[in-house]
Amino acid sequence: MDDNKEIESLLLFHSAVLILKTMAMSLLTACYRMKNKVIATPEDAFYMPTGRCVRDDPEVERVRRTHRNDLENIPIFLAAAYIYGMHCNPSVSTFAWHMRIFTVCRIAHTIITVSAVRQPYRSILWTVAWTVCLSVCAQIIQFSYDSMGQL
Amino acid sequence: MDDNKEIESLLLFHSAVLILKTMAMSLLTACYRMKNKVIATPEDAFYMPTGRCVRDDPEVERVRRTHRNDLENIPIFLAAAYIYGMHCNPSVSTFAWHMRIFTVCRIAHTIITVSAVRQPYRSILWTVAWTVCLSVCAQIIQFSYDSMGQL
Amino acid sequence: MDDNKEIESLLLFHSAVLILKTMAMSLLTACYRMKNKVIATPEDAFYMPTGRCVRDDPEVERVRRTHRNDLENIPIFLAAAYIYGMHCNPSVSTFAWHMRIFTVCRIAHTIITVSAVRQPYRSILWTVAWTVCLSVCAQIIQFSYDSMGQL
Repeated sequence: MDDNKEIESLLLFHSAVLILKTMAMSLLTACYRMKNKVIATPEDAFYMPTGRCVRDDPEVERVRRTHRNDLENIPIFLAAAYIYGMHCNPSVSTFAWHMRIFTVCRIAHTIITVSAVRQPYRSILWTVAWTVCLSVCAQIIQFSYDSMGQL
Repeated sequence: MDDNKEIESLLLFHSAVLILKTMAMSLLTACYRMKNKVIATPEDAFYMPTGRCVRDDPEVERVRRTHRNDLENIPIFLAAAYIYGMHCNPSVSTFAWHMRIFTVCRIAHTIITVSAVRQPYRSILWTVAWTVCLSVCAQIIQFSYDSMGQL
Repeated sequence: MDDNKEIESLLLFHSAVLILKTMAMSLLTACYRMKNKVIATPEDAFYMPTGRCVRDDPEVERVRRTHRNDLENIPIFLAAAYIYGMHCNPSVSTFAWHMRIFTVCRIAHTIITVSAVRQPYRSILWTVAWTVCLSVCAQIIQFSYDSMGQL
């Protein structure tokens, strides 16, 4: 019972942090749009009459690419982590380390991608987070097979 | 018990509406593609031999941008709302208003973005929905801290 | 009880497969980037000094479009399927067929889109998967109305 509570608590905290992190990308895009005077649609000239409506500003596109990278990785991880924590009875420490590593890697990935730090740091962080998600999925499939065998 | 049932029922309804709303964007993209004879890949010339395979049609790109905006906001909100409603014991009315405001804002956001209504309406609706999601995440983190303290 | 276990097991398995399938798109993009020497950001010249940082390689853009199509469909389906299976008491066979058809269609959709097989196969697979998601959402709304009526 206590273990379940602890897993629930970890799941809630890390999910909320990952969601906030993804939400922050929208604000960051807006900041770079303001800085570089790049607007997304002609209507936005309301705020920035001198803004150019282009798709080729390197900084804005970099933030948007980082945001898309989050969208490619975080929503499916949230689903995987929820199913794993709530249905697969992982041990508290296994679960905690999966969540911590993924969250830290994704936050560091964003900082490094947006700052255009030289490779291979971005690839390493991305790969570690991706591997954590792979491990969660493998354990879900394993658990699902075991529970099918017991039916 | 009744409160939990009511929250579950609200969560189910609003989640399904938001999912249907996101799904509708695919149909809307297809409609604008047909209207403006813009195809996504060369294979689609099967349906529209005169279609141009371009990425610069203003209307098609507008719908695709709106769709991307949904993908940036709705899947993470669905995760946040589920965790909030099922694990954080919110009061029925707090939960109901979070869900209602988010759903209404996102639907209105789509209508206004696709119709290219002049700003600031789009920004206001986007910001309100974003703030609702922020509030949900803040409450999840608060709840998670409180429950960690009790362990 | 046994029915719930069976639905849980099906949900876990199909969710994990869909998540892995989405994750595989990232690897596939990386493969095509290497094959065609197209890099995503200037930093990636670290790995491929002769790589061109362009957005117009037909094969890379095709895989990215397929990935985006997954992002448009899979995360919201995962949410819908979880809510449907865990909260709406579907029959085991109804639930199983919804999951199987969606999973098979999305995997086949990816293979066909990436290989640029001629239409209408891609559209048919996409439409079947979309309809399965529609059916899940309709049943969630139906269930939510029924349970609101009982309050």
